[in-house]
Amino acid sequence: MNKRVITLTTDFGQRDPFVGIMKGVILRINPQALIVDLCHEIEPGNIVRACYCLDSALPFFPKNSIHVVVVDPGVGSNRKKIIVKTGETYLVAPDNGVLTMAMKNMGFDFAVEAMNADYFIRPVSSTFHGRDVFAPVAAHLSLGKYPASFGKNLDRPVLLDLPEPEFLENGETQGTMVFRDRFGNMATDLRPAPGENALDYRLKTVNKKHIPLVTHYAAAKEGELSGLVNSSGYIELFVKNGSGADAFNLKEGDFVFLKKKTGAAGKRP
Amino acid sequence: MNKRVITLTTDFGQRDPFVGIMKGVILRINPQALIVDLCHEIEPGNIVRACYCLDSALPFFPKNSIHVVVVDPGVGSNRKKIIVKTGETYLVAPDNGVLTMAMKNMGFDFAVEAMNADYFIRPVSSTFHGRDVFAPVAAHLSLGKYPASFGKNLDRPVLLDLPEPEFLENGETQGTMVFRDRFGNMATDLRPAPGENALDYRLKTVNKKHIPLVTHYAAAKEGELSGLVNSSGYIELFVKNGSGADAFNLKEGDFVFLKKKTGAAGKRP
Amino acid sequence: MNKRVITLTTDFGQRDPFVGIMKGVILRINPQALIVDLCHEIEPGNIVRACYCLDSALPFFPKNSIHVVVVDPGVGSNRKKIIVKTGETYLVAPDNGVLTMAMKNMGFDFAVEAMNADYFIRPVSSTFHGRDVFAPVAAHLSLGKYPASFGKNLDRPVLLDLPEPEFLENGETQGTMVFRDRFGNMATDLRPAPGENALDYRLKTVNKKHIPLVTHYAAAKEGELSGLVNSSGYIELFVKNGSGADAFNLKEGDFVFLKKKTGAAGKRP
Repeated sequence: MNKRVITLTTDFGQRDPFVGIMKGVILRINPQALIVDLCHEIEPGNIVRACYCLDSALPFFPKNSIHVVVVDPGVGSNRKKIIVKTGETYLVAPDNGVLTMAMKNMGFDFAVEAMNADYFIRPVSSTFHGRDVFAPVAAHLSLGKYPASFGKNLDRPVLLDLPEPEFLENGETQGTMVFRDRFGNMATDLRPAPGENALDYRLKTVNKKHIPLVTHYAAAKEGELSGLVNSSGYIELFVKNGSGADAFNLKEGDFVFLKKKTGAAGKRP
Repeated sequence: MNKRVITLTTDFGQRDPFVGIMKGVILRINPQALIVDLCHEIEPGNIVRACYCLDSALPFFPKNSIHVVVVDPGVGSNRKKIIVKTGETYLVAPDNGVLTMAMKNMGFDFAVEAMNADYFIRPVSSTFHGRDVFAPVAAHLSLGKYPASFGKNLDRPVLLDLPEPEFLENGETQGTMVFRDRFGNMATDLRPAPGENALDYRLKTVNKKHIPLVTHYAAAKEGELSGLVNSSGYIELFVKNGSGADAFNLKEGDFVFLKKKTGAAGKRP
Repeated sequence: MNKRVITLTTDFGQRDPFVGIMKGVILRINPQALIVDLCHEIEPGNIVRACYCLDSALPFFPKNSIHVVVVDPGVGSNRKKIIVKTGETYLVAPDNGVLTMAMKNMGFDFAVEAMNADYFIRPVSSTFHGRDVFAPVAAHLSLGKYPASFGKNLDRPVLLDLPEPEFLENGETQGTMVFRDRFGNMATDLRPAPGENALDYRLKTVNKKHIPLVTHYAAAKEGELSGLVNSSGYIELFVKNGSGADAFNLKEGDFVFLKKKTGAAGKRP
């Protein structure tokens, strides 16, 4: 019953004891919690990256998991702390937009502003709400406490204004490079239409007119900037056995353009 | 009963299998142990940093936790291996001073020199006592073995000579920068007197005469070296949305000076 | 019963959510699995390093553990996915040789090609078999599913052609530097004969004629390239309180030479 998964996503890194301390706080409240690290090496304060990290992971966790995100440059200010319920899943985070993608893709039943200090470590410090607020709130949620115990409903959590694909007059869809991974692969926010074959598209960037689309990494030519559909269903740029981002100077925020090949077959079942 | 928390603090890093191997050893002896990573990216041999890492984490763990520290440049030499009992908590480490702060702040009931090879992985290697000594000793402790099973009492564990705040003739208290975190924030060993308000103090470094004290990170001016009371109750130097240590060339070991403002109110209840 | 250890060794690093996602997949299938991280900072695609990492860890885990390795530059191609049984231990990995050392040292009962998509996350992506194939297969194995449920026997898993010590005409044994650790220590594939004392040998590299062998790190002279028998029983080169690999420009693949001292005693009991 209390063996719920609690995931942690922070910009605390792993050279300091901060993540471990959050785990101590959780295990003091619920010794049966199953704590899973999602990402801790997020660049300090990079809310957008945390947003994409969480979103790509959510579909693969047990439905009744609790996901905590602490990328929180406003810690100690009057920014709110929120609990979001989406199905059986809870999200716990500062109300700074870090849950934008998760709420968009998982749905949003309701949000509560966490205000009840009975569930905080007191005195609450002004610099480490991961320890004093978010970890204990998640732990109490994992024990079955109702969201209403923590505070009042909040109608409109903060949402980030993230890039969205745009349909251009020339028939291309303009997307954005949104997530660079360890390998130097660069995910975009473009995806083929459901049932469509990625190989029927033409892909380009601002600097490169023809980027071949392939079925898997090893199918590309060495050294050539290539594209494929990644494990989240999005178009991703890469270089086989190398770093596409480094070799071709790709940056998060750069544009990418996708167009259906003329003469390509339509939707396939 | 056997579901005790065992934390691990090492300088083993995370590119090698050493930490994972310690976990294997623990789980072979006590499959119910709840292992938590505290810090593994401690600079090789930096006993002082490990000392502060552990100290900041201890208050937030369950009382019956077992904390293992392996920063151990003397591995294989005749330096001792110790178990320290402080309340219901056990500390397990080489006897090189790495437990100094923990014993000072948590108390010290007694120490035992771990000598009984029945509780070691044998043959004991000369290079990896984390695997052969400290992990199995912690695992056996987590099963309820008495400290006396491991060896005889040790009266005086090694203590580090750590910097202490000093009261200067001009009314200032001289402290030391002791812990740089991932964000480039720099914690000192100075704290306001209990019940005092940090904002009633003046803060300076050797190079900088006036460092404004604020209530939380976001309350500082961009780019300005500022101070606040951090989550452990100590004065910490920082730059909002930046690295104070990098921008102002702060180093662990540098001095910092704190003085009560003239005309500031006295103790507040 | 289902509380089996599952270890993860990947080149996914820790800045991305990939490892966390694998854990989500495992815990959805077996909430009782005890997941342990072995190494995730393996250089992208470095199958050989993963091979040595796993091998050094295996003897220290519970016998019925399941070890998953995902260093997989051929992901999405027609390279096979295998389950290897060795005693009560299962190894799960792409069939690219990454299990070579483990099979050599732990033994090899049989291998199965994992083909039954009932045990995969579907649709199987072409870029993330850690999530879609290896994690769920390991989780189902941890629940007691028989290897035969996953596919047919595979007679000859791919083996890497790893360096082997060579006996030279001059009486020396030529070995290879095979594993550099975080500290800059460099393990070789040479070991003293069973029962022999390492101090009775002479050690040299291509550039350095006399490398003193000592019993433990602290016994060496500061700044001097030295050797000892490491925790896996192999000769390792190091510099006391420094990085031997950096100071003496040692690289994995470099040769090292070991010879019995003339006049040294024979085997000791």
